[in-house]
Amino acid sequence: MAEALTGEAILAATEEVLRRYGPAKATVVDVAKALGVSHGSVYRHFATKAALREAVTKRWLAAIHEEMTPAFGEGLTAAEVLRAWLQKLFDEKRRAHHEDEELFATFRTLVHESSDIVEYHLGHMVGQLTRIISAGVETHEFVTDDVDVTAQAVWDATNRFHHPAHAREWTGPRVQEEFDAVVSLVIAGLRYNRVPSAAGDA
Amino acid sequence: MAEALTGEAILAATEEVLRRYGPAKATVVDVAKALGVSHGSVYRHFATKAALREAVTKRWLAAIHEEMTPAFGEGLTAAEVLRAWLQKLFDEKRRAHHEDEELFATFRTLVHESSDIVEYHLGHMVGQLTRIISAGVETHEFVTDDVDVTAQAVWDATNRFHHPAHAREWTGPRVQEEFDAVVSLVIAGLRYNRVPSAAGDA
Repeated sequence: MAEALTGEAILAATEEVLRRYGPAKATVVDVAKALGVSHGSVYRHFATKAALREAVTKRWLAAIHEEMTPAFGEGLTAAEVLRAWLQKLFDEKRRAHHEDEELFATFRTLVHESSDIVEYHLGHMVGQLTRIISAGVETHEFVTDDVDVTAQAVWDATNRFHHPAHAREWTGPRVQEEFDAVVSLVIAGLRYNRVPSAAGDA
Repeated sequence: MAEALTGEAILAATEEVLRRYGPAKATVVDVAKALGVSHGSVYRHFATKAALREAVTKRWLAAIHEEMTPAFGEGLTAAEVLRAWLQKLFDEKRRAHHEDEELFATFRTLVHESSDIVEYHLGHMVGQLTRIISAGVETHEFVTDDVDVTAQAVWDATNRFHHPAHAREWTGPRVQEEFDAVVSLVIAGLRYNRVPSAAGDA
């Protein structure tokens, strides 16, 4: 068994161990036991417990990033792509939080163990928004002086619907309407400057 | 001393006791001691400890609401009034959080002891936004089909800059720029519909 041991198998086992014991109690020995190998075998792939935890967190985030690739499609406006992306993000966060709250809490803990990982993740998500807004700017659907700053502003303005600190609010009876109203306001804001001479800024 | 005891004096003493001992340990006996009266004298004004805590919380919130009355002034656009209001809210929250973090945490605990108080406070704050947006709609600076829904959307979109869950982010080196970008996006969104025929909605 030890000969066939791959990094991927270790990461899958680590996720399972984290799910079972939680981030405070899970050890490399637990991971080795789950795989039926010595902990030395695990350390040959991941030099430290911290490296293993970081790798499993990045694997978890990579799956989210893959899932959140913007769905550009023929005939779709940038506003439609943006609304669908934000809705999917909200739906996925709600689903993850409610169906598997423990795993969600575990990964939240892991993500915050390293500010590098937080920045990597936020950078990736805001980067997806940058792609969508840039596409809208190219077709003159959106106008902005600075796509990066605007992408960050869209991320921040929709904060209540993706930041885990607000997870308890996601079951409110009117939360979908409140989400729709924020997204409509944001999309209107992205469009407004199409006619830059139409008005000044406050 | 007991004869001159007013509700206001009790509330001021209660705030001081809460500041000193925290919400978990502060008792009515502490308040009475601070005033040099019997706890019976305190109970003659506030029938229960819960009633006293609710009254002191409402008094604290009333001071905030007074402070946050929108500053309409001659020659100011609704966008300017809105930006100034949101900036003041952000500045006050940052100041309260950093200068007197314990008291801030105390009142956060008290506010969350009663969902009625949370709703009362949020209703008041969103109501202030409704007043500002309505003023903008009257002068055709803003357009919206539903002022109340839009006011809630502005409150939600600026969430990162007033919700205490994000207090740790308020010291970031770029947080003022990020605030400015969100407010500009929101104001552009409020203005956009001025020419309703200019575009559809996503």
